[in-house]
Amino acid sequence: LASKAGAFSATLFPGDGVGPEISSAVKQMIEAAKVPVTWDEQHINKTVDPRTNSMVTRENLDSVLKHKVGLKGPMATPIGKGFRSLNLTLRKELELYANVRPCFSLPGYKTRYDNVNLVTVRENTEGEYSGLEHEVITRKASSRVAEFAFKYAKDNNRQKVSAVHKANIMKKADGLFLECCREVAAKYPDITYDELIVDNACMQLVRDPGQFDVMLMPNLYGDIISDLCAGLIGGLGLTPSANVGMHGLCLGEAVHGTAPDIAGKDMANPTALALSACMMLRHVGHVDAADNIQQAVLAVIAEGKYRTRDLGGNASTSDFTKAVIDKLS
Amino acid sequence: LASKAGAFSATLFPGDGVGPEISSAVKQMIEAAKVPVTWDEQHINKTVDPRTNSMVTRENLDSVLKHKVGLKGPMATPIGKGFRSLNLTLRKELELYANVRPCFSLPGYKTRYDNVNLVTVRENTEGEYSGLEHEVITRKASSRVAEFAFKYAKDNNRQKVSAVHKANIMKKADGLFLECCREVAAKYPDITYDELIVDNACMQLVRDPGQFDVMLMPNLYGDIISDLCAGLIGGLGLTPSANVGMHGLCLGEAVHGTAPDIAGKDMANPTALALSACMMLRHVGHVDAADNIQQAVLAVIAEGKYRTRDLGGNASTSDFTKAVIDKLS
Ligand SMILES: CC(C)[C@H](C(=O)O)[C@@H](O)C(=O)O
Ligand SMILES: CC(C)[C@H](C(=O)O)[C@@H](O)C(=O)O
Repeated sequence: LASKAGAFSATLFPGDGVGPEISSAVKQMIEAAKVPVTWDEQHINKTVDPRTNSMVTRENLDSVLKHKVGLKGPMATPIGKGFRSLNLTLRKELELYANVRPCFSLPGYKTRYDNVNLVTVRENTEGEYSGLEHEVITRKASSRVAEFAFKYAKDNNRQKVSAVHKANIMKKADGLFLECCREVAAKYPDITYDELIVDNACMQLVRDPGQFDVMLMPNLYGDIISDLCAGLIGGLGLTPSANVGMHGLCLGEAVHGTAPDIAGKDMANPTALALSACMMLRHVGHVDAADNIQQAVLAVIAEGKYRTRDLGGNASTSDFTKAVIDKLS
Repeated sequence: LASKAGAFSATLFPGDGVGPEISSAVKQMIEAAKVPVTWDEQHINKTVDPRTNSMVTRENLDSVLKHKVGLKGPMATPIGKGFRSLNLTLRKELELYANVRPCFSLPGYKTRYDNVNLVTVRENTEGEYSGLEHEVITRKASSRVAEFAFKYAKDNNRQKVSAVHKANIMKKADGLFLECCREVAAKYPDITYDELIVDNACMQLVRDPGQFDVMLMPNLYGDIISDLCAGLIGGLGLTPSANVGMHGLCLGEAVHGTAPDIAGKDMANPTALALSACMMLRHVGHVDAADNIQQAVLAVIAEGKYRTRDLGGNASTSDFTKAVIDKLS
């Protein structure tokens, strides 16, 4: 089970709530897969760093910039004025412009849908998320996320990219987004390209998600649709996510909440973080290790003996982790 | 089957594509239910009326203002610069501030979900739809649509209103919307009130739509979520809609497309328009007739013998309509 790629270092934000437990679980899985990684563990401040105007410190950001890759547990932004979302601060300050969320039906874990196998690619820096509460959409950000989506499709043997928009209403902003998508699509003649209005996209998703492959969209629609897709296959506890930026930056991220009610109780499901770690591992070339970990995680869920509570089982985080590690060694 | 309420007049926009066929079908059903209505048939211009800056003419608008109630088939806005959406022009110019879409699982018509029974109430005049491509949200529009939703809940024996928002990001706009919802909620202590972030709302909807009752939201989220909900029960061909405004204005509206491929072929399903007509009939007090028509339509679908193609059958529009009328007489 040795990896082909070499040793590397990575930032680890264990995060809040169940974050430390699932981070520890995932570190053990990665170790069992014999990945030669050195972790730089980073913690978010309890007070605002004036240099970043956030509880995310300059050191936190510099760690990711230095290692280029990282993994992030859920973080709880304190409620109240003056607190920028920690998740968004990381995405924005590091200019992690593409949020990538593969979403697929888990073998053996039954939901109403059994044929989901799609990837949402979400513009991660602008739109209504610009801080201006306007839909700010630029050519630069739209083109680079579109480039990312088509290249991702090509590299991952995906056949189709569907752009999601509301250009019939947001003629300027979403119109520009579509224009950029079309320009990039023209450079990838082997990949089918189509467009859907966001309301119709949601209706189609709940009727027949099997028709989708890669979905490409502005920030807000991506936020909504990626959660909808997670719902189709069982929830955010199961779906990985990676934030990708320039210069090879990649931050894997579990996008579920901190689940304070079960924090510290050895009950949380580490699947989303584990699969996010696999995305990070593939990014640095540890493809075999990523495949092995992913297969082991999916096999444990499929077998059903060691499922955590969110999946209807009564395995602890440790039971589940041990079962995954047993498969890896 | 005579109605308690009296004679009235109403505007009818047959609309484009399949609009005229399904309008004619629905007129026949209403006649069979012995509703004493006089229709004022209105057609949209083929050129822009300078008084309205739209193909919707001053006469079109005045007709609705005069009769106060109306029914509208699907309309096709020509593609290209300078054409405002006809649907939106009607909503906006008539200040039809609440879009109401009941969405329920149809007895006997199987989808992945069998327990949907909710109503989306959508702010219908502002948000990103303001024409400014900003999320323009005002106290006035938010309060009146919230008032509408709670009163609707009370009048229709609904237990809960769930406000949908993204106030963690759109702190100002969606924050104001929530503030207005909370103020109104305080006046309705018998109705449960809760709030969901829009991404989570979509995830919850696909996992367990049975948890929702009345959903209240700004324009864009309402656009997205109402289509998502329609998808849960079989599509826009089955879901009614009404646009409600001040001074008793109510415009029932089929929100599906014009389906040009089957236009004129006696193949379209008039269900969405028929159920929208029922909303209009209830609005003017013809509650018994509305209930009768709705029951007849649902019974024909449930029995399965006369289903149109979109529902997997091979009944024509006329077959279906005749079957409904047979039940009414
Ligand atoms: C936590 C929140 C700010 C975030 C977002 O809106 O992007 C989350 O919903 C997500 O999708 O990662
Ligand atoms: C046709 C379109 C402009 C309209 C909207 O966006 O409101 C439609 O999607 C709807 O929901 O009625």
